[in-house]
Amino acid sequence: MTTQPTAAMLAIGDELLSGRTKDKNIGYLADQMTLAAIELKEVRIVADDQDAIVAAVNALRERYTYLFTSGGIGGTHDDITADSVSAAFGLACIYNEEAMERLAASYERRGIEFNASRQRMARMPEGATLIDNPVSTAPGFKIGNVYVMAGVPQVFQAMLTNVLPTLEGGVRMISQVIDCSFGEGDIGTQLAEIQKAHPGTSIGSYPRFTETGFNTQLVVRGRDQAAVDAAGGAIRAMIEALKR
Amino acid sequence: MTTQPTAAMLAIGDELLSGRTKDKNIGYLADQMTLAAIELKEVRIVADDQDAIVAAVNALRERYTYLFTSGGIGGTHDDITADSVSAAFGLACIYNEEAMERLAASYERRGIEFNASRQRMARMPEGATLIDNPVSTAPGFKIGNVYVMAGVPQVFQAMLTNVLPTLEGGVRMISQVIDCSFGEGDIGTQLAEIQKAHPGTSIGSYPRFTETGFNTQLVVRGRDQAAVDAAGGAIRAMIEALKR
Repeated sequence: MTTQPTAAMLAIGDELLSGRTKDKNIGYLADQMTLAAIELKEVRIVADDQDAIVAAVNALRERYTYLFTSGGIGGTHDDITADSVSAAFGLACIYNEEAMERLAASYERRGIEFNASRQRMARMPEGATLIDNPVSTAPGFKIGNVYVMAGVPQVFQAMLTNVLPTLEGGVRMISQVIDCSFGEGDIGTQLAEIQKAHPGTSIGSYPRFTETGFNTQLVVRGRDQAAVDAAGGAIRAMIEALKR
Repeated sequence: MTTQPTAAMLAIGDELLSGRTKDKNIGYLADQMTLAAIELKEVRIVADDQDAIVAAVNALRERYTYLFTSGGIGGTHDDITADSVSAAFGLACIYNEEAMERLAASYERRGIEFNASRQRMARMPEGATLIDNPVSTAPGFKIGNVYVMAGVPQVFQAMLTNVLPTLEGGVRMISQVIDCSFGEGDIGTQLAEIQKAHPGTSIGSYPRFTETGFNTQLVVRGRDQAAVDAAGGAIRAMIEALKR
């Protein structure tokens, strides 16, 4: 088995932790990673606090193939992601030339002054490369294996769309979803035996509360079609036997 | 200034990281912590993986006043939160007597066999106390400063409702929200000066993308009413001056 690429996400912002803003980027990234066959292993949310950001960036970038961040790259005093990521890498946080040019051109076209606050959005670690922002110009950036993107969902999604084709995916995960009208209590023991008998797969059991009470959705995941089919078959046989 | 209570959340589950399930508990907890005047400082999401859960539980329970977990406490093989939290504390994971009694009584009432899989839901660290589950009986538990709750949102919310009155809150955070029709680029420099002049407050700037383009919501937070009022007044004066 070859090594599979892994990923982590770091969502940055006081507003996520106070409840003011409900994050929409984590679920979006999770979906996109699954499609790209990159395994999202961990997510963290931290405040706009340099020490917290530096600690999380360093823990996650060392442990996983890719780290994606959201938030804190605007032009106001509470946008400290660029400074914090620079500090995490031990790099100077500079005004990136290409970013300055893009922003200057965009503001000139619109007849808006390119003032100090707007110039702040061009700050990033020395040696970073830009991530295009087709929505509102101000670019994200990549440094090492860290992709720094905006927190506004429309911009985050647009930036991620630009990043995805540059990532190396793994062997795609195959999954089978099996609806089960029995609760976990009815199937738990047998399901554990099926999991043991099919070690090349990962079987998840998800209880759901619906109008008719609790039922269960079973998901078989794996990278080998035959192994996933075999585990799925065993689960369906178990459910049929229970119905008799 | 007295020390304010802090909190962290650990959401556990492969399904959150694959995108299959979109978490609804983090935002809910964030809102409830703000209402309870407990500062939510960090959130992590990890897979159903004992090493990952143990590492996160120990990092977070040592750093914050309270740690809340969601997910992985059902009766199937992939529910490993009780074992993992026990391992994090170096405690045996046992069948809690009171939980066994509650579950046995509930299943007896409903004429359902209390089998091995259902008994698994009574497993928790030795010395844990129960968190009531009015929705589906199987209790959560508290051990030390860690509150272990279900992942199904209806159950998570019901458990948290039972836990909240037992927590010690801090001095309530006061906030003022000010809508600003100017973009961050227009106000960034002045806003940074206002923040510097009002150190007892925390001023957040949140760009939003709406039909009319980018505008900004400004939020002043603090624990002293006069300080928050003063900063809010300075921000409104800035906006009025820009309109002229």
